[in-house]
Amino acid sequence: MPKIVDHAERKTELVQSAWRVIARRGVAGATLREIAAEAGFANGALKPYFPTKRDLLKATYAFVFERTNERIRQVVEHRAGLGAVLAFGREVLPLDEERRDEARVVIAFWQEALFDPELTRQNSDSVQVWRAWLLEWVDQAERAGQLRASISVRMSVDAMISFLLGAQVTATLDAGCNDPERLQVQLESIVDSWRTVDHPGTENLPV
Amino acid sequence: MPKIVDHAERKTELVQSAWRVIARRGVAGATLREIAAEAGFANGALKPYFPTKRDLLKATYAFVFERTNERIRQVVEHRAGLGAVLAFGREVLPLDEERRDEARVVIAFWQEALFDPELTRQNSDSVQVWRAWLLEWVDQAERAGQLRASISVRMSVDAMISFLLGAQVTATLDAGCNDPERLQVQLESIVDSWRTVDHPGTENLPV
Repeated sequence: MPKIVDHAERKTELVQSAWRVIARRGVAGATLREIAAEAGFANGALKPYFPTKRDLLKATYAFVFERTNERIRQVVEHRAGLGAVLAFGREVLPLDEERRDEARVVIAFWQEALFDPELTRQNSDSVQVWRAWLLEWVDQAERAGQLRASISVRMSVDAMISFLLGAQVTATLDAGCNDPERLQVQLESIVDSWRTVDHPGTENLPV
Repeated sequence: MPKIVDHAERKTELVQSAWRVIARRGVAGATLREIAAEAGFANGALKPYFPTKRDLLKATYAFVFERTNERIRQVVEHRAGLGAVLAFGREVLPLDEERRDEARVVIAFWQEALFDPELTRQNSDSVQVWRAWLLEWVDQAERAGQLRASISVRMSVDAMISFLLGAQVTATLDAGCNDPERLQVQLESIVDSWRTVDHPGTENLPV
């Protein structure tokens, strides 16, 4: 009987391997051979699933983004308002080596996406998911009186997204000034600056 | 008589050409032949100045960074405190096609720097110049009573740097939500959130 291959499972294994190799060597340095070997397969195993390195980078970015979102869903489940924003931000910040590897894949993806409209769209669709979540939480915070009157919900959300994307760069390329503790304090300093003086630290807004 | 070549000038011409080609095609897509041709030179003209593409990327990043800093020095000359922070931020934000091209070169450089300690150091040394300027301006703002008591000078500066680096990505890859007007409002929303309620809009602090 022929061996039954679970294609979805194999695809995931290959993407997990690709993520590690790309984080370690960059897109240019990662060979399809090494990625297949790291996953325990022969050289030709990648081709049927990912004909080009670009297909693999696309799938790897989607995988990393979905991993991050899994973590986010868990931590925001019982939070709302600015507490949810903080919990979300802490999952997006590269606070450990695992997440710095995710950041390295994301930076590699950005560089490719600059010259590839389909990858550009994949990036903005992904960011749109975060924007929708953040808009809801900041809106909750506003209705609960957590925000200073002068804070614009929409602009705060977009500034937060830019901050979190920039932190992917500062955490990996300027780690001395952006260790995990400092990154968290930076995040808190932004969220704190949105708060009314009357409601300092009201993180535990009921959902 | 042999033709006298101004080596410094030729080097600058080649870097200016490299910047355009890298912004248009990425590091992988930019060939040394095309860069030489764009500057009006034969294929071999680059080699004596930049033996590898990496040398060229290094010089191009330094060139783009210095261009940005030239603009910054001009606009902050008669400004201090939060007014200087805003003027600085507006020069770093990619608000036109020229500066979006600069952003594309910077993103290409980050991706290379992730796997190259010397380029990593070049990046953090560059950011350190901005950090020193920002610390001085935010410190001025604090002494002038422009800042809310709860705002930490150091953390605000690092959060601002992350925001400005992230804006290089959002302006080029998610331009729909990050057009020039919105980017400026994001910048202002961060600086405004630092201000005391008593000193709204005190941009024109005397130097």
